[in-house]
Amino acid sequence: MNTIALITDFGTVDGFVGTMKGVILSIAPQAKIIDISHESAPQHTHHAAFVLWSSYKYFPENSIFVVVVDPGVGSDRRIILVEDEMGKKILAPENGILQFILPELKRPKMFHINNLKYWLSPLSTTFHGRDIFAPVAAHLLNGVRCEDLGIAIELPIPKTPFKQIDVSTKEENGIILHADRFGNLITNFRPQFEHLDDIQHFSLEIGNRVIGPLKKTYADGEYGELIAIVGSSGLLEVAVRNSSAHLMLGLRIGDPVVIKSNDT
Amino acid sequence: MNTIALITDFGTVDGFVGTMKGVILSIAPQAKIIDISHESAPQHTHHAAFVLWSSYKYFPENSIFVVVVDPGVGSDRRIILVEDEMGKKILAPENGILQFILPELKRPKMFHINNLKYWLSPLSTTFHGRDIFAPVAAHLLNGVRCEDLGIAIELPIPKTPFKQIDVSTKEENGIILHADRFGNLITNFRPQFEHLDDIQHFSLEIGNRVIGPLKKTYADGEYGELIAIVGSSGLLEVAVRNSSAHLMLGLRIGDPVVIKSNDT
Amino acid sequence: MNTIALITDFGTVDGFVGTMKGVILSIAPQAKIIDISHESAPQHTHHAAFVLWSSYKYFPENSIFVVVVDPGVGSDRRIILVEDEMGKKILAPENGILQFILPELKRPKMFHINNLKYWLSPLSTTFHGRDIFAPVAAHLLNGVRCEDLGIAIELPIPKTPFKQIDVSTKEENGIILHADRFGNLITNFRPQFEHLDDIQHFSLEIGNRVIGPLKKTYADGEYGELIAIVGSSGLLEVAVRNSSAHLMLGLRIGDPVVIKSNDT
Repeated sequence: MNTIALITDFGTVDGFVGTMKGVILSIAPQAKIIDISHESAPQHTHHAAFVLWSSYKYFPENSIFVVVVDPGVGSDRRIILVEDEMGKKILAPENGILQFILPELKRPKMFHINNLKYWLSPLSTTFHGRDIFAPVAAHLLNGVRCEDLGIAIELPIPKTPFKQIDVSTKEENGIILHADRFGNLITNFRPQFEHLDDIQHFSLEIGNRVIGPLKKTYADGEYGELIAIVGSSGLLEVAVRNSSAHLMLGLRIGDPVVIKSNDT
Repeated sequence: MNTIALITDFGTVDGFVGTMKGVILSIAPQAKIIDISHESAPQHTHHAAFVLWSSYKYFPENSIFVVVVDPGVGSDRRIILVEDEMGKKILAPENGILQFILPELKRPKMFHINNLKYWLSPLSTTFHGRDIFAPVAAHLLNGVRCEDLGIAIELPIPKTPFKQIDVSTKEENGIILHADRFGNLITNFRPQFEHLDDIQHFSLEIGNRVIGPLKKTYADGEYGELIAIVGSSGLLEVAVRNSSAHLMLGLRIGDPVVIKSNDT
Repeated sequence: MNTIALITDFGTVDGFVGTMKGVILSIAPQAKIIDISHESAPQHTHHAAFVLWSSYKYFPENSIFVVVVDPGVGSDRRIILVEDEMGKKILAPENGILQFILPELKRPKMFHINNLKYWLSPLSTTFHGRDIFAPVAAHLLNGVRCEDLGIAIELPIPKTPFKQIDVSTKEENGIILHADRFGNLITNFRPQFEHLDDIQHFSLEIGNRVIGPLKKTYADGEYGELIAIVGSSGLLEVAVRNSSAHLMLGLRIGDPVVIKSNDT
């Protein structure tokens, strides 16, 4: 398993990502480098945090995630390495990127990456993706131990952004967490129902609209109808069959959503 | 040969494609995953059908093409696996994606993919790219037989969208099949000439313009001149040297084109 | 080391790049294909020249760079292969793409690629990326010698576009060479200072603004402040912390920049 998976805001027009891959392959030619996304809004850590969380569990054991959305590059912000029980690792600046995934990991070990021996030299002040993240990931793949790349630290585990919903839920307040390419609005409600049919006992209130009862698939909606379903990440989302709920509702990340039982 | 080639409408902003790759590598770490395109217009199967057709024959034997442009995800649309004589395979929803490539294959074997044993569980209703297509492709690469992944079926072979043109052609009606990044308008005329010079006996009528006689290369046109040539896929296309015929003519996929012999 | 690195203007909507990868893997299944950029402005060789230059030295020995930004495809422009002392190779049309990298290489060997034996047949007039560049790169990877793929030639080495700046510099005229994804404007000034602090002795004049003294990192600027720093490629660049200098100044590639010592 030699997977290094990249999430950045570097885009694909310039050669930033290609250069990082050149550095990785120079040190660890066996690396299988996977692009998750390079289109996080520049310097927008929230998007990267969501993408990391939603793809994390589908990668093989020992995969190394490298997340470079780093508006503080060159400042004294720290670079953090997290290792979970399966040997999966995440390398990211300490700036909120880990806020969604960290509460999901069991007994994560954490390190502050500070051993310059494994960095490129000269070190730029503006492109640590190339000069620190890429070589550190490659050395990890080569078997260098976390302890040799930095020092063990303990970071507080942030509160999970997700709210468990089950059949006993009467009413709960939440937010829009993410909007995807298809214009689906993803909330922070994570339903845990025994029977998929239980979903029909709930409705969502969002942007002065009431959507409900919840449905099982996109195809259960009429064309153009706003529906709420459990999306692929296990979160409740608002969608319009073959169209964009994001455009239709004109809402933003962080806007409020309420889930209510239809029985009340 | 461990190639899995992807065509989707997932874009590269979200982590959808990266997640599919994580699933593939978890099951088949030896996979070489190639991105053909993730920018099909969302839920627009025509574009994906063209991209699949135009790249297909350039891939190695035993390559596995995974095409996920799937507006019917979660409905009862079927997932189809096609295998050709060279062992190349295509995995796609049954929604028109195969319409261009299927008439070109000799004795294709077809299967309806329905063996849940090879799918991820729990199965989402909205992301079969991750839960069905990716694991099925990975198991195919690992040597699981088509017969074990689904049941053999016979689908009617669609009529080819391409019209053979040769020196004996007097006049033929066609359509615009595709517009590429450079703004070239690709028709469904497939010339079969013995001598490349024979091309000069023809003109194209398109959007009230007459373009002709046909030329051999882009460089045979003046800057800004509309020309018609045989493009890289072997189809007649309308181009403007260093500019966009698509923008200049304001035409659409499906609009009519007529080829006429200059001798008449 | 089996790296083939691609720079093209093909975009990722059509299947052009995927098709090239299919051709490469058909001939050299061991290839590790890396995308550097496929988003050069169509037929704009200047951008590709910069991206090639800025990523080149970070790739492993023996890497093969394939650059297909080729407005003259089908004309009699030549395809050039360059090999440096480390065995790194570049394959590109003779159209200015090599102008930034060539002056940096020591004793480059050059070849005019003209041996059709290693090309696809039939040869299209419009897609040499697929029919010539991809198979030639794959055969290079397989060990075919440069001498067998074409004939040795001597091209004049262009004058370097970069201007060395050191503590003794009083005033020097330069230009904007590139604008990156973040809106940073990259100049052709290449500072060579013994102490990073020496940078503070200089200011930049650009678009009727005076920016200075130069700073060490993005983080040394206030939010919204125009600053000049040494960027990741070792060139002086103009940036705005967490915003776009390109948009703020409304300047273009080629616009003039002056560096002046603050001591005069």
